[in-house]
Amino acid sequence: MIIVMEADASEQQIAEICAYVQNLGFEPHRSQGVETTIVGIIGDDRRLDANVFRALEGVGQVIPVLKPYKLASRDFQPQDSLVDIGNGVVLGGPEVAVIAGPCSVEGEQAILEAAQAVKQAGAVALRGGAYKPRTSPYGFRGLGEVGLDYLASARVATGLPVVTEVMSPAQVEYACERADVLQIGARNMQNYDLLLEVGRTRKPVMLKRGLSATMNEFLLAAEYILSQGNWQVILCERGIRTFETHTRNTLDLNTVVALKGLTHLPVVVDPSHGTGRRELVLPMARAAVACGADGIIVEAHPIPDASISDAQQAISPAMLAELVKDVKAISQVVRKMAVVA
Amino acid sequence: MIIVMEADASEQQIAEICAYVQNLGFEPHRSQGVETTIVGIIGDDRRLDANVFRALEGVGQVIPVLKPYKLASRDFQPQDSLVDIGNGVVLGGPEVAVIAGPCSVEGEQAILEAAQAVKQAGAVALRGGAYKPRTSPYGFRGLGEVGLDYLASARVATGLPVVTEVMSPAQVEYACERADVLQIGARNMQNYDLLLEVGRTRKPVMLKRGLSATMNEFLLAAEYILSQGNWQVILCERGIRTFETHTRNTLDLNTVVALKGLTHLPVVVDPSHGTGRRELVLPMARAAVACGADGIIVEAHPIPDASISDAQQAISPAMLAELVKDVKAISQVVRKMAVVA
Amino acid sequence: MIIVMEADASEQQIAEICAYVQNLGFEPHRSQGVETTIVGIIGDDRRLDANVFRALEGVGQVIPVLKPYKLASRDFQPQDSLVDIGNGVVLGGPEVAVIAGPCSVEGEQAILEAAQAVKQAGAVALRGGAYKPRTSPYGFRGLGEVGLDYLASARVATGLPVVTEVMSPAQVEYACERADVLQIGARNMQNYDLLLEVGRTRKPVMLKRGLSATMNEFLLAAEYILSQGNWQVILCERGIRTFETHTRNTLDLNTVVALKGLTHLPVVVDPSHGTGRRELVLPMARAAVACGADGIIVEAHPIPDASISDAQQAISPAMLAELVKDVKAISQVVRKMAVVA
Amino acid sequence: MIIVMEADASEQQIAEICAYVQNLGFEPHRSQGVETTIVGIIGDDRRLDANVFRALEGVGQVIPVLKPYKLASRDFQPQDSLVDIGNGVVLGGPEVAVIAGPCSVEGEQAILEAAQAVKQAGAVALRGGAYKPRTSPYGFRGLGEVGLDYLASARVATGLPVVTEVMSPAQVEYACERADVLQIGARNMQNYDLLLEVGRTRKPVMLKRGLSATMNEFLLAAEYILSQGNWQVILCERGIRTFETHTRNTLDLNTVVALKGLTHLPVVVDPSHGTGRRELVLPMARAAVACGADGIIVEAHPIPDASISDAQQAISPAMLAELVKDVKAISQVVRKMAVVA
Repeated sequence: MIIVMEADASEQQIAEICAYVQNLGFEPHRSQGVETTIVGIIGDDRRLDANVFRALEGVGQVIPVLKPYKLASRDFQPQDSLVDIGNGVVLGGPEVAVIAGPCSVEGEQAILEAAQAVKQAGAVALRGGAYKPRTSPYGFRGLGEVGLDYLASARVATGLPVVTEVMSPAQVEYACERADVLQIGARNMQNYDLLLEVGRTRKPVMLKRGLSATMNEFLLAAEYILSQGNWQVILCERGIRTFETHTRNTLDLNTVVALKGLTHLPVVVDPSHGTGRRELVLPMARAAVACGADGIIVEAHPIPDASISDAQQAISPAMLAELVKDVKAISQVVRKMAVVA
Repeated sequence: MIIVMEADASEQQIAEICAYVQNLGFEPHRSQGVETTIVGIIGDDRRLDANVFRALEGVGQVIPVLKPYKLASRDFQPQDSLVDIGNGVVLGGPEVAVIAGPCSVEGEQAILEAAQAVKQAGAVALRGGAYKPRTSPYGFRGLGEVGLDYLASARVATGLPVVTEVMSPAQVEYACERADVLQIGARNMQNYDLLLEVGRTRKPVMLKRGLSATMNEFLLAAEYILSQGNWQVILCERGIRTFETHTRNTLDLNTVVALKGLTHLPVVVDPSHGTGRRELVLPMARAAVACGADGIIVEAHPIPDASISDAQQAISPAMLAELVKDVKAISQVVRKMAVVA
Repeated sequence: MIIVMEADASEQQIAEICAYVQNLGFEPHRSQGVETTIVGIIGDDRRLDANVFRALEGVGQVIPVLKPYKLASRDFQPQDSLVDIGNGVVLGGPEVAVIAGPCSVEGEQAILEAAQAVKQAGAVALRGGAYKPRTSPYGFRGLGEVGLDYLASARVATGLPVVTEVMSPAQVEYACERADVLQIGARNMQNYDLLLEVGRTRKPVMLKRGLSATMNEFLLAAEYILSQGNWQVILCERGIRTFETHTRNTLDLNTVVALKGLTHLPVVVDPSHGTGRRELVLPMARAAVACGADGIIVEAHPIPDASISDAQQAISPAMLAELVKDVKAISQVVRKMAVVA
Repeated sequence: MIIVMEADASEQQIAEICAYVQNLGFEPHRSQGVETTIVGIIGDDRRLDANVFRALEGVGQVIPVLKPYKLASRDFQPQDSLVDIGNGVVLGGPEVAVIAGPCSVEGEQAILEAAQAVKQAGAVALRGGAYKPRTSPYGFRGLGEVGLDYLASARVATGLPVVTEVMSPAQVEYACERADVLQIGARNMQNYDLLLEVGRTRKPVMLKRGLSATMNEFLLAAEYILSQGNWQVILCERGIRTFETHTRNTLDLNTVVALKGLTHLPVVVDPSHGTGRRELVLPMARAAVACGADGIIVEAHPIPDASISDAQQAISPAMLAELVKDVKAISQVVRKMAVVA
């Protein structure tokens, strides 16, 4: 961390800052510029809060030099992490994975049919919600544990690994026994007790970006999971909230590219929530793969208009088959392209 | 809910929409405009998801007529809710309450001194975090249950009611025994299991607005708590995330005024998180009271620069005393002003 | 336009609304729902301001049925507009055009060398600013008319059509004589006198989206130009301003796809301003083409680090050559893909 | 400016940076930290673009030390600027000014009646638009020069100074002869030719903040005007664009307080555009004064519902009289309050 003193900071103020740094167990390093004095902090200062210094007298600016996350960074692990979610499906490797399924598990037969449709269309994993976070307490909140049982049956019947959301630490154990990937939804990206709980399991976790989470906050949420020893973390960009309302969210592919540079973790894209509109799903899935996403997770339903929730963004099995085909075609082209930076 | 068909919707599409509405257990009401047909849905359609209709063929727009929340609305309860948090302090009534204290409980002696300073400055309740949500897993996450014990001691010593955050359902019981108001932080505004859990208690709850929560989402989060029978909910505006970064957040006083019109629940304002800068706290507290806030919750510390967390936004006891004085002065003036709309 | 009355609107209020509509020269059409009354307005009500009705007593909601823009919409002209910018380069047709060049014209020799490098790399048109909008009055604001002369020379020497920005109505005439496409920058998207002025020319216009312009506002800005009889309008998505600051802007490809559905005008993407970081330009250009953009406009400089302005987002000729190659490869794959909606 | 090199920057890279700085006519000052090397730039580097350095090899971060604006800053002029707009009305002094009037000049008789109503309600200046920026080309765009003539008549009849918008350099001369304050609208905050043109006059200018302008950009736009020798600049906060849509904009009072600290220019607040809803205007005007605004500019109309534009945010003469009274009452209380920072 570098502390840039104000131009008119007094000698005493500078001395106090240095003493303050020493009290915290770090070594201050003072260097005199022409217009201002700079105090550097020596050591791994990730656990220091830059704001603590900002409040001190005579301090102009405080500039972190180290990235705030460590385990998630490429500096720490240069090579790509591979996350094996079962049945030979690996995220972060050469194949772009398509994960698909209904927004929520609607019944035993329903999820089975959905799984079969998804498999036939070429997707390699099944998504489906047993616990549904709903903005209104009056909405359908999912089938709960029974829904997880149905998902497990669909997994047995089709062989597809299952991705499903957990919303609370108490749900994690049951979900671990029935699913292959625990999903943390956007609303819970900073539900730290939940992050720590899934961090204590050894199940792959798909962490969705919060609606207004910066890239740094997203990586720090992943760091919570990694810090518990669970290295199987998949990041998922699913759109951010902006002033633009003609789409449900603004899919931020810039961040997908930036993430691939900064972290070794696989990054998948959810064009369903990222757009909120069925007709945009296919083009945005193509774009996501073209800029380097490791996978696509998408809402698909045997009869989209009959979906209990999120009907307007669910795609049909026919569209899903197109999506799988397109993703492969673009992925093959992109893989041959040069990395020039 | 009103469904506006597309101008070129076919007779069959209209008939299918009507049948669909009936299948959901509602009565469709068709009316023929000149350019388009309109299908109204009769009944309390709050539990219907407008998006379900948006996906159907021939549908142009879907317009909810009812507000999505019910128990929280002034239509449901026209008179102001009064929330008694103990020791004679009532939110939502004629007195504007000032709640103050350190960001986090730093130790037994520290919180006691802070409580005494806060009381002496004229604040009527104590805030302080035993569980601290931190963006980084490497930050100080609070003292936990011991911190709650210290808070309880400070309460006994000063008589001040205590406001403290819970981050997870498992923490609620212990906190209920030691604190007077359970705070739900901004990051957890849509942590639904937590909302339901505090809804099952009969403790006052202070619900902070999420960083990117719309007013509707904020009221629906309150509705989660109310729906469990806990009517003692206090809303807290604490700044939203926008493109502007020179302040930590953008304090949205527009929404405070709008909330006072739409809901009977008390609304308090947090100018500490809402600005993130000590020198803005006092002026924005004044503004909050001038536009009708029922209370101010503010970070104060005996020695602000020595605060473990959020130092740059904590105010000193002297500033807090000014704040209490100013809030009273403005409140008295505003109370005499006419309501003209 | 549809006016949904409040549930408790009186008969007199409804009658007054109907009278009001008639006074404006339109026919009201009243239809009685169960919970509320609806008043439809018959006729082309685009020139009516929905807000006028929102203020009237008893009005609950006002819902526009017609799109606010007309000439720009696909309803008005279903087939794609082709904009010929000279030398055989057509925007909106089967070929994806790459337009490249330095941020600003730095000198006669400099722009000539840049043009030659750009041409050699495979780009089909030259961009370069003679008038530079700068946030600070102390920044380099471009060479002005001399810069336009240099651009004209580079055009003669290379045959590349020239795209250049105009910032004020007074600059339009001189620019028309020396350039092939008049660019309206993001800051001027709602500079209406400028829009009308370029609308009165018969030069192709590249209209960049404003930093916080909604899709509707963007199309209405295009409508200003079209309304003056100039049909050669190219839309350019160049990133919007959001809370995320690790990239200069957030490139909104969702809107590119949505625009291709709603308007017949060609849509190009600027990944330089859309990301602000050199290493993101190439991947995001790939993504833009994958989701259907008609062209890419990009900042390229013979020696990027020596660029007077926007150095950190300019790419080298070698990267530009890669970009041109990649854009072609992806475009060929995408062109064969099915349109499934 | 301070350049923080990357931890692994080579000696040659550091030397090249130093040489680069010298080439630009500045003196580099190198200081060796423990983890990294820092290169300071000596001299008034406001005209340097930090981004130029960001692109160079080995550079980690570039931190501006000087504020980007100079003439607008309190460092340059510590005491408050007083802007006299005529008839004894001074912005920036002890009196809080209320400026009111219709959105647009609707006719000679109409503006006269409006002016008389505004005066009677206690406002000290008249606002009214002759040139109206409209999102749609099909909206009412104002009466133009005739509207300015009518405003001049209303000024003669009532003695009220007149505030009116100019949208293009060509309109400035005529407006100067008929009005007392030239308003630059939010959409034109970065229309630099217009800023320079009003900067060349010696008329007071009211500069409205752009919809997505940061505080720095706002002050730099003011700097454009000041740099031409026109020191009579009034800043106006009128709401920013955020994700929240239940109000037309989000009034950012945080920035009003921050501006009062950073600049000597007077700051007024527009609660009409800042909220977009009549019932919020009065409470937010109170809040604006409570946090230190120098004036309020508000849309008022003799018969608000009959206003041609912006009807839903216009207030009646009776509400305006309340507003004037409330503003005075709060202003008197706030003036006595201590400045504690």
